[in-house]
Amino acid sequence: MNRPISAELIEEHNAAHADILAEDYDALARKLARSGVDIDAIKDRVAGFTVAVPSWGAGRGGTRFAKFPIPGEPTNIHEKLEDCSVINQLSRLTPRVSPHFPWDKVSDYQALRDEAAALGLGWDAVNSNTFQDQVGLAHSYANGSLAAQDAGARAQAVEHNIECIEIGRQLGSSDLTVWVGDGTNFPGQQDFTRSLDRYLEAASQIYAALPDDWRMLLEHKMFEPAFYSTVISDWGSSFLAAQELGPKAKCLVDLGHHAPNVNIEQIVARLHRFGKLGGFHFNDSKYGDDDLDSGSINPHQLFLVFNELAEAEANPRGEFRPSYMIDQSHNVTDPIESMLSSAETIAQCFVKASLVDRVSLHDAQERNDTMMAFQALRRAYNIDVAPILARARVEAGGVYDMLAVYRQSRYRDRKAQERKPVGLGAGIV
Amino acid sequence: MNRPISAELIEEHNAAHADILAEDYDALARKLARSGVDIDAIKDRVAGFTVAVPSWGAGRGGTRFAKFPIPGEPTNIHEKLEDCSVINQLSRLTPRVSPHFPWDKVSDYQALRDEAAALGLGWDAVNSNTFQDQVGLAHSYANGSLAAQDAGARAQAVEHNIECIEIGRQLGSSDLTVWVGDGTNFPGQQDFTRSLDRYLEAASQIYAALPDDWRMLLEHKMFEPAFYSTVISDWGSSFLAAQELGPKAKCLVDLGHHAPNVNIEQIVARLHRFGKLGGFHFNDSKYGDDDLDSGSINPHQLFLVFNELAEAEANPRGEFRPSYMIDQSHNVTDPIESMLSSAETIAQCFVKASLVDRVSLHDAQERNDTMMAFQALRRAYNIDVAPILARARVEAGGVYDMLAVYRQSRYRDRKAQERKPVGLGAGIV
Amino acid sequence: MNRPISAELIEEHNAAHADILAEDYDALARKLARSGVDIDAIKDRVAGFTVAVPSWGAGRGGTRFAKFPIPGEPTNIHEKLEDCSVINQLSRLTPRVSPHFPWDKVSDYQALRDEAAALGLGWDAVNSNTFQDQVGLAHSYANGSLAAQDAGARAQAVEHNIECIEIGRQLGSSDLTVWVGDGTNFPGQQDFTRSLDRYLEAASQIYAALPDDWRMLLEHKMFEPAFYSTVISDWGSSFLAAQELGPKAKCLVDLGHHAPNVNIEQIVARLHRFGKLGGFHFNDSKYGDDDLDSGSINPHQLFLVFNELAEAEANPRGEFRPSYMIDQSHNVTDPIESMLSSAETIAQCFVKASLVDRVSLHDAQERNDTMMAFQALRRAYNIDVAPILARARVEAGGVYDMLAVYRQSRYRDRKAQERKPVGLGAGIV
Amino acid sequence: MNRPISAELIEEHNAAHADILAEDYDALARKLARSGVDIDAIKDRVAGFTVAVPSWGAGRGGTRFAKFPIPGEPTNIHEKLEDCSVINQLSRLTPRVSPHFPWDKVSDYQALRDEAAALGLGWDAVNSNTFQDQVGLAHSYANGSLAAQDAGARAQAVEHNIECIEIGRQLGSSDLTVWVGDGTNFPGQQDFTRSLDRYLEAASQIYAALPDDWRMLLEHKMFEPAFYSTVISDWGSSFLAAQELGPKAKCLVDLGHHAPNVNIEQIVARLHRFGKLGGFHFNDSKYGDDDLDSGSINPHQLFLVFNELAEAEANPRGEFRPSYMIDQSHNVTDPIESMLSSAETIAQCFVKASLVDRVSLHDAQERNDTMMAFQALRRAYNIDVAPILARARVEAGGVYDMLAVYRQSRYRDRKAQERKPVGLGAGIV
Repeated sequence: MNRPISAELIEEHNAAHADILAEDYDALARKLARSGVDIDAIKDRVAGFTVAVPSWGAGRGGTRFAKFPIPGEPTNIHEKLEDCSVINQLSRLTPRVSPHFPWDKVSDYQALRDEAAALGLGWDAVNSNTFQDQVGLAHSYANGSLAAQDAGARAQAVEHNIECIEIGRQLGSSDLTVWVGDGTNFPGQQDFTRSLDRYLEAASQIYAALPDDWRMLLEHKMFEPAFYSTVISDWGSSFLAAQELGPKAKCLVDLGHHAPNVNIEQIVARLHRFGKLGGFHFNDSKYGDDDLDSGSINPHQLFLVFNELAEAEANPRGEFRPSYMIDQSHNVTDPIESMLSSAETIAQCFVKASLVDRVSLHDAQERNDTMMAFQALRRAYNIDVAPILARARVEAGGVYDMLAVYRQSRYRDRKAQERKPVGLGAGIV
Repeated sequence: MNRPISAELIEEHNAAHADILAEDYDALARKLARSGVDIDAIKDRVAGFTVAVPSWGAGRGGTRFAKFPIPGEPTNIHEKLEDCSVINQLSRLTPRVSPHFPWDKVSDYQALRDEAAALGLGWDAVNSNTFQDQVGLAHSYANGSLAAQDAGARAQAVEHNIECIEIGRQLGSSDLTVWVGDGTNFPGQQDFTRSLDRYLEAASQIYAALPDDWRMLLEHKMFEPAFYSTVISDWGSSFLAAQELGPKAKCLVDLGHHAPNVNIEQIVARLHRFGKLGGFHFNDSKYGDDDLDSGSINPHQLFLVFNELAEAEANPRGEFRPSYMIDQSHNVTDPIESMLSSAETIAQCFVKASLVDRVSLHDAQERNDTMMAFQALRRAYNIDVAPILARARVEAGGVYDMLAVYRQSRYRDRKAQERKPVGLGAGIV
Repeated sequence: MNRPISAELIEEHNAAHADILAEDYDALARKLARSGVDIDAIKDRVAGFTVAVPSWGAGRGGTRFAKFPIPGEPTNIHEKLEDCSVINQLSRLTPRVSPHFPWDKVSDYQALRDEAAALGLGWDAVNSNTFQDQVGLAHSYANGSLAAQDAGARAQAVEHNIECIEIGRQLGSSDLTVWVGDGTNFPGQQDFTRSLDRYLEAASQIYAALPDDWRMLLEHKMFEPAFYSTVISDWGSSFLAAQELGPKAKCLVDLGHHAPNVNIEQIVARLHRFGKLGGFHFNDSKYGDDDLDSGSINPHQLFLVFNELAEAEANPRGEFRPSYMIDQSHNVTDPIESMLSSAETIAQCFVKASLVDRVSLHDAQERNDTMMAFQALRRAYNIDVAPILARARVEAGGVYDMLAVYRQSRYRDRKAQERKPVGLGAGIV
Repeated sequence: MNRPISAELIEEHNAAHADILAEDYDALARKLARSGVDIDAIKDRVAGFTVAVPSWGAGRGGTRFAKFPIPGEPTNIHEKLEDCSVINQLSRLTPRVSPHFPWDKVSDYQALRDEAAALGLGWDAVNSNTFQDQVGLAHSYANGSLAAQDAGARAQAVEHNIECIEIGRQLGSSDLTVWVGDGTNFPGQQDFTRSLDRYLEAASQIYAALPDDWRMLLEHKMFEPAFYSTVISDWGSSFLAAQELGPKAKCLVDLGHHAPNVNIEQIVARLHRFGKLGGFHFNDSKYGDDDLDSGSINPHQLFLVFNELAEAEANPRGEFRPSYMIDQSHNVTDPIESMLSSAETIAQCFVKASLVDRVSLHDAQERNDTMMAFQALRRAYNIDVAPILARARVEAGGVYDMLAVYRQSRYRDRKAQERKPVGLGAGIV
């Protein structure tokens, strides 16, 4: 296995912090034991928790105004994989990479799959891109893709998605995530219903090309790049599209794609209730689709989402198999550091949700004992679960203090020597 | 027919304004004729347009902080009917009243129906109330109604709704509007899924009691009175509930019950596309469920809603039969004046939507000619359609300047002499 | 001292939990010591932290739709004081009550002051009420109070505020909180500038009556009860009003009175920077002025507010003396339980902010090390500070598990026997 | 004078529509005369109304996701000026161009000024750019500009702004608009107060370099490109900064830079009341800083803004001299068409505000006659003022139907032959 960070560095670090970890872990173990919770069982549970990282997240993101690159940024899928392997080597939480095409195109996908495997990485959902024009495309997506008036643009978008499925098969993926930028900037620009009909017709062609064990994850978004309407704007539209398409179509929830104030955790529960919860793009936001680090703005909301996932897992109603992925735009940090920190935050919420005393919670709900039902959640939320995560991580081969070791490794500095610099620009191109 | 406003007053007023109206109508006729539009055809179309008024809207509304009554406010359904008949006499737009129970309870509904008929009024959707406790109720709705944990509260709420249907049959109504205040103020207070399951189970009992030609209109609302979650919070939840219940269940859109920034006109199109558009509660809002006068804050949005309704009517996909009702809280105006003004504004939007050149619009959409598609809407929006409405109104027996005649009639002053005063208080009780 | 909860019950409970508390406190002490933090110093700091409770918060709140009373609710200031003393007896965090007039009017304020003192309570800011009409008032506030067109209403509102100051002097208070419901529901209803001019002219009369050591706290609010505009709608308006009035006028921040998505912690920093930070009304919200329990929806935001307060205290720029008060509407819980839980949550955020390593934070900020600056805050936020608060509370005479002891005491049940029941109704009247 | 559109084409078009215009103008004249309004006086008033266009607005805009160029797009200031002259030639509303540096840098500004003059164009506010890195800059703005920790970045940003003033003097401008992207993406990233202090210190250096007859227009923005906080986030911060800097510093309101639901027209009134209203960036938005065409989403709000401007002009309180500019991102339309349509919409709102019967309005306000005060605004809003604008335009040398003539001229097609194509990309670079 090809591991970018020195094993000695990790071992040394972990050894130096073994006593501290043991002390904190034992103290928490005693505290949890008082409530009848076996900390090792929780730790084993978290050992099975993973979240995918997006290949594009390894590079600096930007806004329409500017992008500020950093030295050592990756500029191709090979460098991105290497960076992703650092995240997984240290965190042991992110063993899969989600590719994006055409950005990650290569000539030999079997070789790419092997390259990733050598770095300890597998592949998550494949993402298609029909929201940007690429040099040489026959049809422009300026007026939409799956929902476009232009039949040529629609056919081209369908074909691209089918190509993504084919690439994904070679990589070993089994999910296709479809997000389109289709929408309008003016009242009247397009008819809402006819746009959706075109979308459904085109999407059904993609659906038809889906292997039996694949899922098609539909991602809704309220706005941006379209600023008056979007074709799949909310979970209601996403659900109805998935229902029209068939059982392999599911809904993907990006935490930043909703209207202000919306109760996202209830949407998660609704999608699960009606059999269409497909997965998540984790990030955080304060204003719009800010794509900030997961839990950096509202960690409690993330906990409440995982609380619903814990309920859903206990009540699968057929199937509970959500796909988890980080989807952030790292505009002001080293992307590796942001994804280390974010994966940890996501896992913390998973652990806290696992620590909710559901017997007490349900009992309080049944008695309309609002205060005690709330306290059942709040007690779990208040627990500092870092020792559980650190112990699970170290046991799996990861490191105690991920950011410290990453910095100590001088990985980015080394890459800044090796890699070619990225130019100025804007946005995510 | 018992008409509260003097026929002489109306005739005199209309006669005094006949020349002005003719001049404006003729000028607009010439302008429209240039685009091939026959103004009389539009006028005839608006002559068939109506919108219901809510019985409770005849009284002053308030907030949780206070209510400021006015002299002459109605305090029972008989006085409310009289006020509603003033609105219809002057506007000829509001021939139906929507009752609310138990607020409008009487001992003899056939007599009430006759009383209304004598005032020129029929009956619209019946509204049930399970969001407040009434003196003498066996079960409290403090913890919910259709979704409550307490089976007694659920049964009581079901029974009340079935009673509402029975009353409605006697009055000649054929719609039941169900809005519940059920929801939570704390994370964890209730389980989202189990709450919805209880709601669906109880709602299906009401549905089962629905006559064949009735509809059950489900009204979603994002928040208030519950401030963390509501059971039927958005159009997605409303749609799914209606789908579970059956074909007679439809979704009702209150313009103030959505998250900030949401594209409501697209929601209207989506509900129609999937066969569940049941009707509207018209009002306007800037912040939350402000229940302001229709079109007072964002008249363009109301026009865009009617533009979707015009598209839907032209493409019925089975059925196009939305129920239209004003639902406002008149906290600072004379309710009669607000409803006169609001009915006029709603009808203006209906006319403007009728004036959209749909051939040009669709042609521009097909050519991706965004600017011309937008201009097709904007041209219609910019037309001052007051002469069309005034002519239609006068021809139907209404008055040219509704507010002027209403004030001249001194109706409210006369009622202030006759009716008993309303005490101080808060809210809508 | 008159203490409503049995001292034996408290002692027994604390004794039974002494070992657990010691174990948790010691474990946390060791953890903090590793970072050079002396837990006892933090504990002593929290021992000095207090937050006032509002007299009206002791009763059940409601919305415009309904209020659901509970047995044993207080119905006058004497019963409310008793309930407030329970909160303080158990928590040792809430030694002051904020009264509201005319709701809390009595004939003898010296006696009321003595009554409170016997319960261990003092008095916080006095709140005036010019947003509701009271029986017998000469002028209605239907069209506003300090900003009203009607000079009589303005004079009456000024006079009422001056009376509140006088009552406050007798009670030993030194702050007057002025929140007005003045605003509009329609574009054009009032002129924005002339309304503000009237407000400023009237407020300056109140200001002139302020004793030298008093402060006038201006509370802004975006909407409700007015739904198109409010006279003091945001911190900018509040600041400018306070600047016009003079140095004793300060701005009060209610966490629920802002537009969606607004960065409230930055507003806190701005008000402090420009010398006008007067205090807080603590609560939480998801949609509007929901008045939910502090930190129940977004505890991280509350922490970030306290982080700004910690910065401000370290950089007083003249004065740092914010007034802290809980201001919640307890619609679905026992108000005593909500205030116990809320006071604890507020104090938790105070402690967490105290635990931020400000040397690291500032150092990271100076180096533009975004990730480490963020981690400095996040590390403190993640600490479970319950043992510090519990130890401080128990040492001060309070109890280890406040909700448990409160329930065990059966206080509310006893009051339900003694007190007269509250009727149905709506809102906060 | 160098006019890009053929004079013959314009004359022919206007001649062909002279009768229609006369008929509509006369009909409106009679209608207005009934209310005592002289249409010619209004027409003369609109003849004096102008709004600037931004040089960068002549090119296609985009989002972080993509930009879709059109054939014939301008790629330098010379081509942009030519396009801007088309807008003004047809509309006679936009005689000034607002430049942006370094985007519009040339070697000889006197020559540029002459070039513009030959096209009938003058120069509006100069815009500096410290939110993007340019090739060859010594210091990066990655961590901010005027508020940056890095003294070098701050000095460079100050120097750039002073250079902008110098360029502006040569062009004949007298306003400097300062918008900075400074802010944070993470809690803790920077200290709110120290960031503002640095901003104020740097801004005061720019202010010191301002000629006596210049103004410094501070533009606030809630978010983007920073997504947790921005240094000048709202009108309160903008006002306080302007107050600190001095009388030549004013606040600029971009309609898309506010929190959801905020009452922007009241902010306009507040800034005027306190002497700091500097000007506007007109656009429209539904979600965030969408930079859509002015009035395309909410034309009523734009009218209400102009209603405040009409009140302010009548009550100047010292000075009333707001700067008006279009600031839109034309992502899906021909920028010339969008600016023609937008300038017309803005002028419509100006005319409608001029038509408000202020005597009736103020009288109704004084009598607390809410309905009639509202109707005074609504009556003016409902008037179709197109004939007034068309007549004023034609009389000034512009054209009756701007979009029709522009398309007939095949201007863009001709430029597509002449100009070099723009590459793919994202955002506004």
